[in-house]
Amino acid sequence: MENMSVYLAEFVGTAILILLGGGVVAGVSLARSKALAAGWIVVTFGWGMAVAMAVYVVGTVSGAHINPAVTLGLASIGEFGWALVPGYIVSQMLGAIAGACLVFLAYFAHWRITDDPEAKLGVFSTAPGVRNPVANLTTEVIGTAMLVLGILGIGGNEGSVTKGDADLSALFAHGLAPLLVGLLVFAIGLSLGGPTGYAINPARDLGPRIAHALLPIPGKGSSDWGYAWIPVVGPLVGGVIGAWIWHLTGFGT
Amino acid sequence: MENMSVYLAEFVGTAILILLGGGVVAGVSLARSKALAAGWIVVTFGWGMAVAMAVYVVGTVSGAHINPAVTLGLASIGEFGWALVPGYIVSQMLGAIAGACLVFLAYFAHWRITDDPEAKLGVFSTAPGVRNPVANLTTEVIGTAMLVLGILGIGGNEGSVTKGDADLSALFAHGLAPLLVGLLVFAIGLSLGGPTGYAINPARDLGPRIAHALLPIPGKGSSDWGYAWIPVVGPLVGGVIGAWIWHLTGFGT
Amino acid sequence: MENMSVYLAEFVGTAILILLGGGVVAGVSLARSKALAAGWIVVTFGWGMAVAMAVYVVGTVSGAHINPAVTLGLASIGEFGWALVPGYIVSQMLGAIAGACLVFLAYFAHWRITDDPEAKLGVFSTAPGVRNPVANLTTEVIGTAMLVLGILGIGGNEGSVTKGDADLSALFAHGLAPLLVGLLVFAIGLSLGGPTGYAINPARDLGPRIAHALLPIPGKGSSDWGYAWIPVVGPLVGGVIGAWIWHLTGFGT
Amino acid sequence: MENMSVYLAEFVGTAILILLGGGVVAGVSLARSKALAAGWIVVTFGWGMAVAMAVYVVGTVSGAHINPAVTLGLASIGEFGWALVPGYIVSQMLGAIAGACLVFLAYFAHWRITDDPEAKLGVFSTAPGVRNPVANLTTEVIGTAMLVLGILGIGGNEGSVTKGDADLSALFAHGLAPLLVGLLVFAIGLSLGGPTGYAINPARDLGPRIAHALLPIPGKGSSDWGYAWIPVVGPLVGGVIGAWIWHLTGFGT
Repeated sequence: MENMSVYLAEFVGTAILILLGGGVVAGVSLARSKALAAGWIVVTFGWGMAVAMAVYVVGTVSGAHINPAVTLGLASIGEFGWALVPGYIVSQMLGAIAGACLVFLAYFAHWRITDDPEAKLGVFSTAPGVRNPVANLTTEVIGTAMLVLGILGIGGNEGSVTKGDADLSALFAHGLAPLLVGLLVFAIGLSLGGPTGYAINPARDLGPRIAHALLPIPGKGSSDWGYAWIPVVGPLVGGVIGAWIWHLTGFGT
Repeated sequence: MENMSVYLAEFVGTAILILLGGGVVAGVSLARSKALAAGWIVVTFGWGMAVAMAVYVVGTVSGAHINPAVTLGLASIGEFGWALVPGYIVSQMLGAIAGACLVFLAYFAHWRITDDPEAKLGVFSTAPGVRNPVANLTTEVIGTAMLVLGILGIGGNEGSVTKGDADLSALFAHGLAPLLVGLLVFAIGLSLGGPTGYAINPARDLGPRIAHALLPIPGKGSSDWGYAWIPVVGPLVGGVIGAWIWHLTGFGT
Repeated sequence: MENMSVYLAEFVGTAILILLGGGVVAGVSLARSKALAAGWIVVTFGWGMAVAMAVYVVGTVSGAHINPAVTLGLASIGEFGWALVPGYIVSQMLGAIAGACLVFLAYFAHWRITDDPEAKLGVFSTAPGVRNPVANLTTEVIGTAMLVLGILGIGGNEGSVTKGDADLSALFAHGLAPLLVGLLVFAIGLSLGGPTGYAINPARDLGPRIAHALLPIPGKGSSDWGYAWIPVVGPLVGGVIGAWIWHLTGFGT
Repeated sequence: MENMSVYLAEFVGTAILILLGGGVVAGVSLARSKALAAGWIVVTFGWGMAVAMAVYVVGTVSGAHINPAVTLGLASIGEFGWALVPGYIVSQMLGAIAGACLVFLAYFAHWRITDDPEAKLGVFSTAPGVRNPVANLTTEVIGTAMLVLGILGIGGNEGSVTKGDADLSALFAHGLAPLLVGLLVFAIGLSLGGPTGYAINPARDLGPRIAHALLPIPGKGSSDWGYAWIPVVGPLVGGVIGAWIWHLTGFGT
């Protein structure tokens, strides 16, 4: 039980991620929402700021991975201990489910009046624009490799530069880097989100999909389990690739 | 009278919040405005930057709560003295009324040529997409809990990290944090603003509603007092919940 | 001639402001531009980032007022020496004219194919949504008061907090504050730009209007001189009011 | 081979630039993308954040020019050694080609279902709104001069101000400046991108154009080689002009 506080932090951080990230999709998708059809800039900024805010709240406690692909990628290059990996991933999954339940509540009056079951599922989980497993998997691999490479790159500026001053290092790591990681996710959404809706995070997709299956959402349709493996496998593979690009190039050393 | 400067700061800060926040709704809603129908990204960025700028102007004086839900939430966990709570809330309410009067003046030529009375009220106060008191209250509770948790999370990065260097701590608290709090409000608007228009601040909603009732707005309709309690009660409850989540998780310690 | 470098800086800074600011209006207004009809978020972000970039380029030299209303407002409360005011304002006016000429060149192939003469004038100078001199003047006064109050508020965070460390003070003043001032202009555009197009700067409006009158723009119409006094007088009055609000409240002390 | 790590950094940085920059154009242009027709704000933010993220990943290694016009401009005023110029430019070109191949893969399922060959080319290279070589060249010269002047201006805040504290200087140079340079590119896109789509970087345009010619893109049309010299020559000339404006004004000294 000694690691409960970091697991709790991952749980809360991922719940915030999904509350704000799923929330923005609900906002642009559900009938009579004030953000209805507000467009891709709203969706991508919503997810980017969701990440930033989650990291500000829990980053000092657990590092705010809030994503199994980040946890696995970091562990694969020795930047995170394997002993904590299972607990992190379980906490992230449970947090994602909790966050999806909060989205369900926050938009409670809007489910019944929205007709399209696919729009409702889209609040919880991703779906591709064109169904093509190899292509969809490739997109998720590239997007998540970019995510983990970017996170390590942002962090590398701290590691290689401000090591002489612990307070200054902390100012970068805790004051500025969470915003930059949020902007990284914003960038990936803008640029690589088009084909698959950029899961780039197994917990972000699978956790809410489970919530979609369990919650009493009026007029819901299929949870589309046939697609569910792609936004799990793709991000895990991509996260490891991104981490190894960073490791092999040696940019952080 | 010894606390007049902090009360004045809360008055001015909340007036700036409403001038810029109400202003952006006027811009997208009133006839022949150059921002007419400019969309949710404009509304949410407008409110987010309104918060940031208000905090930059008065934050060093009063901490820039500019929101009774923040004041109450902080007091409920011992982060703010109860003795100042009434003065803060009164100042915030009066500032919100003053800010709404400035919006009335800034858009003076546009009220008469706008037909829709609901659009005019919308410049001042929020209204739900679907009228459902329990659901609307829930949305405001969740949004404001996220707000106060986020504010404490952002501040926690200062508190737990840069305590060794007072100037660096101030650089974070006064140089960067106001922008981050503005981006937090931007995030909440993007993600949780769809159902109720995200009051998440009793002064932001009730103050301008009073101004709407009193000002000689051409062709104005009802001030919708039947809804007015929800954006007061919801944010106060949510603010306390958000503060206690922070307090009980112990992330800031 | 000893002040030539600051005057040159004001000239270059204001030219950058108008190149990027006028440019974004050209982008959304002129036929066959790739940004045609891109909306208010593009216009307001374009002007906000124009300010930020101008300040980054010349801020360390002259303080980057790039606006006679800022120069006059600061001088009126003793924050800037009167002896430099005439040279600053002349430099700003000449820089604005130069910047407008660069916009003319950058969009050279687009003037002839654009039909609407008002759209062409709009690239250079502001025009109100509803012509009402008292209301238009009021809007410009409020917007510019907000601008100067905001600039002083942002600067006040440096002055009151980081005075113990000159390098840290410089990091705030030259590293972060230019971005924040750009976001302030973004905020004012979003929220108070609807009625008059937010000149909030006499040089920004009058300089390009002179350029519009002189340049051989194909199919240009009137330079609308009847309106030209409002975006000069309004900002000058508003700038002084904003500075005195800051001075009288004593927030910066 | 001693410079391999900086060349590798330029290669990776430029690949990231094109992956994210070309990606955002693919997102708004290709059939059944979730970002289809998302507008100029998405395109310009996508390219701006692409630059920022590329600089965060490789900036500490090579300075992240990721643009021959920047490399040449800096060398022309003695801010970068001529010996490294050829290697930098070759690395940037190869990186741009690699990045374009990644865009091809990330959007693999979308090429076949998109009809318009010009839309496909637009993912790779720029094309003018109005074909007019002198005007198009002028636009690219002005845009790139603004880019290099802005980069030197942003950097100048570090050079002239925080030289007393190496860690603080690094915090600015590596923590904040990459974001500011990304916002500079965002600004140039918003304001000067309308006529030619703002190549402002020979590698950004020519590298992907070569990839377009070589890749087996279904239904692709001409690579428009007749236009290809303009986004090469214009940026190179503009980069040198921008660098010399900075050098001659002496703002950085």
